Amino acid sequence: MRSAGLDEIRSVLDVPAAIELIEAGFVALSTGAATVPAVGYLGFDTPPGDCHIKYGHIHGDEVFVVKIATGFHENVSRGLPTGHGMMIVLSAETGETLALLDDAGYLTDVRTAIAGCIAARYLAPDAVECIGIVGAGMQARMQLQYLRHARDCDRVRVWARRREQSAAYRNELSDSGFDVQIAETLQDLCENSNLIVTATAARSALVRSEWIRPGTHLTAMGSDAPGKQELDPALFARAGVCVVDSLSQCMDHGESHYAVAGGHVTETGLVELGDIIAGKARGRSDEDEITIADLTGVAVQDIQIAKAVWQALKD
Amino acid sequence: MRSAGLDEIRSVLDVPAAIELIEAGFVALSTGAATVPAVGYLGFDTPPGDCHIKYGHIHGDEVFVVKIATGFHENVSRGLPTGHGMMIVLSAETGETLALLDDAGYLTDVRTAIAGCIAARYLAPDAVECIGIVGAGMQARMQLQYLRHARDCDRVRVWARRREQSAAYRNELSDSGFDVQIAETLQDLCENSNLIVTATAARSALVRSEWIRPGTHLTAMGSDAPGKQELDPALFARAGVCVVDSLSQCMDHGESHYAVAGGHVTETGLVELGDIIAGKARGRSDEDEITIADLTGVAVQDIQIAKAVWQALKD
Repeated sequence: MRSAGLDEIRSVLDVPAAIELIEAGFVALSTGAATVPAVGYLGFDTPPGDCHIKYGHIHGDEVFVVKIATGFHENVSRGLPTGHGMMIVLSAETGETLALLDDAGYLTDVRTAIAGCIAARYLAPDAVECIGIVGAGMQARMQLQYLRHARDCDRVRVWARRREQSAAYRNELSDSGFDVQIAETLQDLCENSNLIVTATAARSALVRSEWIRPGTHLTAMGSDAPGKQELDPALFARAGVCVVDSLSQCMDHGESHYAVAGGHVTETGLVELGDIIAGKARGRSDEDEITIADLTGVAVQDIQIAKAVWQALKD
Repeated sequence: MRSAGLDEIRSVLDVPAAIELIEAGFVALSTGAATVPAVGYLGFDTPPGDCHIKYGHIHGDEVFVVKIATGFHENVSRGLPTGHGMMIVLSAETGETLALLDDAGYLTDVRTAIAGCIAARYLAPDAVECIGIVGAGMQARMQLQYLRHARDCDRVRVWARRREQSAAYRNELSDSGFDVQIAETLQDLCENSNLIVTATAARSALVRSEWIRPGTHLTAMGSDAPGKQELDPALFARAGVCVVDSLSQCMDHGESHYAVAGGHVTETGLVELGDIIAGKARGRSDEDEITIADLTGVAVQDIQIAKAVWQALKD
């Protein structure tokens, strides 16, 4: 069994190859070419925490992947990261363990950012004037960095609940070559951006429909668990294309869940990202259309990011 | 993260300590002091194989455990073991991975053998004249070796479908100090043993009720999946105590499932092993009683055997 830690994983990861693999993963999910069982869950009370086990197999693949991810938010008081994780690559031909990727949750961050990149590739307007980033945490940083693989735009507005977070974000991302302005208000951000990514832990709609101008694409990343919400559900009624990573999962939680419950869109009005990538459903049809991608996170992303690392380790 | 391979795991494992921990695990399961989610399952067609993910937490424990076990029976033609596995010990306080036990399935064999030992401790007659082992595979070997921690008896009869397997078994276990005879027939084995362990892959009843004499204890280990069966269900009607490792699991598969379906015993007539260990239910009441233990394998065994290794590695 090959074992790789965070430094080695970072050094071998080929981002363009990983993007291609994750696109193929979404297609596999939407065309029924992947077996993805229900996520395993174990909860803890004292201290509060949880463990999620995501696993699955893309049919025909030589390998399958099991991801174990934990979250213990009181770790902050111990000076530890709240999330930990690892991915295990096993042979789908012999059952042997091939690799342990002890990535401390990094690959989950990457595969989540890549999903935002893919959504932007297929849905964002060709000419992005300004990227609006809602939130200033790790995922808000990575979303912006990975958008470079989708659209060529350095102008960025950022908004977070606490201004000092926005300032830290601006300083850090400016070092990466972005021209980052701190938006005075979330409304200001929305009215002046035509590619908006929300990556917050919000539990009620932050982004109001009336702030969004025609032609904008929005990717909502934060609704990865029941109870989380970032977008005004009314926005779905204005959108020309409403995309989900997994129809079944987004009907359980995610933005779409609220939009369907509120009658702003029907379940049949939702399209899976994999069907758009495969050309089986249309993406953006003109530059004035509003498009939404509701990304809750699916195991095919984990399978494919782990495969990308495994292939690089083998070579 | 600490990583340990098979040799190190074998060298540090303290069997008496592991037996105590697994007894406590059965008690936790039966008293609701363990969270044990449904087993995760992933199946494969070409080649045929499967992956089971067992995990859980005993309340109050500092750690929890995830076990990944695979089975690919065509591995035989590649000269590989059919089963592979690993156990992962994680902190229930921070979610960090503490240890990876790369045990190649060994700990599953051990925890299964220990369950048989515990069943015999609480249910076998005090005076065992002869141990009957049905089956001659790895688990049949380990069951006998671990029975040394329950009863003091070296006389053994073995029976397997193929006589050459029985001969290999006799040679190997004789080297461990047992006086092993090959039974001419399974009937002969049953009629001359008062502690019988079945550890086969049978899919229909092998052991007939009329062959079993009063005072015998039987442990059935092989019914670890739907469709497997080793004991004549009518035997349950003659037994004074019918014990299961997990009531819910044994009603889904296991010997008890067939016995209840056939009307030989009612569900309320089944007792969990943990309740007997805890003194909440009675075990054997006299030397003439027939007792049965139907052991299908539960995650608390995995949790506790991994904890036993983890504690030894820490010390």
